[in-house]
Amino acid sequence: MAAGKRIGVDLGGMSVKIGAVREDNQIVERVTLPMNRNKPFQEAVKEIAEAVLAMGAVASVGFGIPSTLIPGSQVIIHANNLGWKHCDIRKELKKYMGETPVYLANDADCAAVGELIHGAAKNVKSCLMLTLGTGIGGSYIHNGKLFLGGNGIGLEPGHMVIHDHGKPCSCGKIGCLETYASATSLMEEAERSNSPVLQRMISENQGRPNAKMVFDASAMNDPAANLILEEYIRHLAIGISNLIAVFGPERVVIGGGVSAAGDQLFIPLQKAVYKMVDEPELVGCPDIVPAILGNDAGIIGAAMLDKVMM
Amino acid sequence: MAAGKRIGVDLGGMSVKIGAVREDNQIVERVTLPMNRNKPFQEAVKEIAEAVLAMGAVASVGFGIPSTLIPGSQVIIHANNLGWKHCDIRKELKKYMGETPVYLANDADCAAVGELIHGAAKNVKSCLMLTLGTGIGGSYIHNGKLFLGGNGIGLEPGHMVIHDHGKPCSCGKIGCLETYASATSLMEEAERSNSPVLQRMISENQGRPNAKMVFDASAMNDPAANLILEEYIRHLAIGISNLIAVFGPERVVIGGGVSAAGDQLFIPLQKAVYKMVDEPELVGCPDIVPAILGNDAGIIGAAMLDKVMM
Repeated sequence: MAAGKRIGVDLGGMSVKIGAVREDNQIVERVTLPMNRNKPFQEAVKEIAEAVLAMGAVASVGFGIPSTLIPGSQVIIHANNLGWKHCDIRKELKKYMGETPVYLANDADCAAVGELIHGAAKNVKSCLMLTLGTGIGGSYIHNGKLFLGGNGIGLEPGHMVIHDHGKPCSCGKIGCLETYASATSLMEEAERSNSPVLQRMISENQGRPNAKMVFDASAMNDPAANLILEEYIRHLAIGISNLIAVFGPERVVIGGGVSAAGDQLFIPLQKAVYKMVDEPELVGCPDIVPAILGNDAGIIGAAMLDKVMM
Repeated sequence: MAAGKRIGVDLGGMSVKIGAVREDNQIVERVTLPMNRNKPFQEAVKEIAEAVLAMGAVASVGFGIPSTLIPGSQVIIHANNLGWKHCDIRKELKKYMGETPVYLANDADCAAVGELIHGAAKNVKSCLMLTLGTGIGGSYIHNGKLFLGGNGIGLEPGHMVIHDHGKPCSCGKIGCLETYASATSLMEEAERSNSPVLQRMISENQGRPNAKMVFDASAMNDPAANLILEEYIRHLAIGISNLIAVFGPERVVIGGGVSAAGDQLFIPLQKAVYKMVDEPELVGCPDIVPAILGNDAGIIGAAMLDKVMM
């Protein structure tokens, strides 16, 4: 690789986070650009390229993209948060950055790579990462490399059916994991509940429920919140054990806001998963841990993408 | 590899099928030994080794084993059909075959390798194989190599939960794929049905129901059989699309007796899976095809194991 900085770019709907990442995986320079859905694709790429070039000599630049990428061409299928559809970011960047190597991956995959290289999955060879947010993102690292499946687009664990005859999902199917185990589903259960504790929390927050309220109410031993949390953890454990049954990872890393719940989530979750995996005494059961890098995971992972491509 | 024959051994509860496999993947010599649960492990291995050595100079010998193998040591955890528990077949074989290279894998994985090398997945880079029998076996080939997951034991797709709150499984969990989509589950539905057509077929077969009866009764347009088959295919499609969501294979191969049903199974199954996968127009939907090698797949796959290890 040419001399210069490794740059990681985490593309989000509200902001673009750019970082120069040193060989020891520390982010040593940062720039944040505002972003919104109304900014045209070409204008946004120009701004990003200029910000990157202002950081000095660049060895490579990696992007975490909130979209599926078409295998091979890596054209963005549809980055809903950015309003970008069928965009070729590599081609557009070339106008400004010439032959500088550009690496692209899904943003969830970049976060998993970041946690692998410098976070909760450091020194682990195979790792499953799930990000519990609006939906459920997921990535699998196999022998230190990012596994993107036969078709090269990566995992869609949020749309594995775990409850045939269950809740309808926005994708058109019934009973997808993300209708039960995303942060959104927890928020919806809080909203739907007639627990006075949860109702008070919601009204004190200007009528806006969130996932954290369920953990807080459960910590106050609210019976309705306890039940919601119990079911949430049971469903999440089904999803995780289904994935362990096919990937057999050494560790499972959980990202997204929900992972901040700590022991309240991880202790019962680990127990539930242990009960669901095959032969845990003989084969072992992966440990389930929270992600630790937060937003930095995406920047670090994007900057180091070339090291983990299969 | 030393000069000599590549031998594949398919270890079953009733018989041991041994074949010498040429470089063009044809089985050119065959020996079958009787097997039963009462034969002690050491005696069985001696018989197999003697039969193999009687075939002439041996370059390598591969075994398809009806058990999970402990990663690393490859000790057999429990081959229920053979009555073998915690057996080290490699060590035992050494007494007779010295330093001849020995490769071991699960029998379902050997069958998948056989179909990849010489059968229904020839010229395919990534392939999911499911075997619908008493349970559901599964294997995934990634870029031409056998994928055994982070823990090295391979897939357990039969115990992915697809119907939380559904039928109890023998493993202790609820709603596992194999309680809905194995050949056994189809047989049980035939037995449970009060369809006169199915009841007659069962009584004409000395009271023994089987999976094929459901296909036969459905071909006669028996409404109960139609319904059983519809639900069976829907559940199988859920399992397959869940696996496509994580592996993205180019092709899905279905083995086991059920796959003999042909178009009656594969046409509605392909349609159902197409509806369940994400973005099939953009990303594509794997074609779903029957296995074609039958029992030979296991022998060929076992003999060629060294070519597909990751």
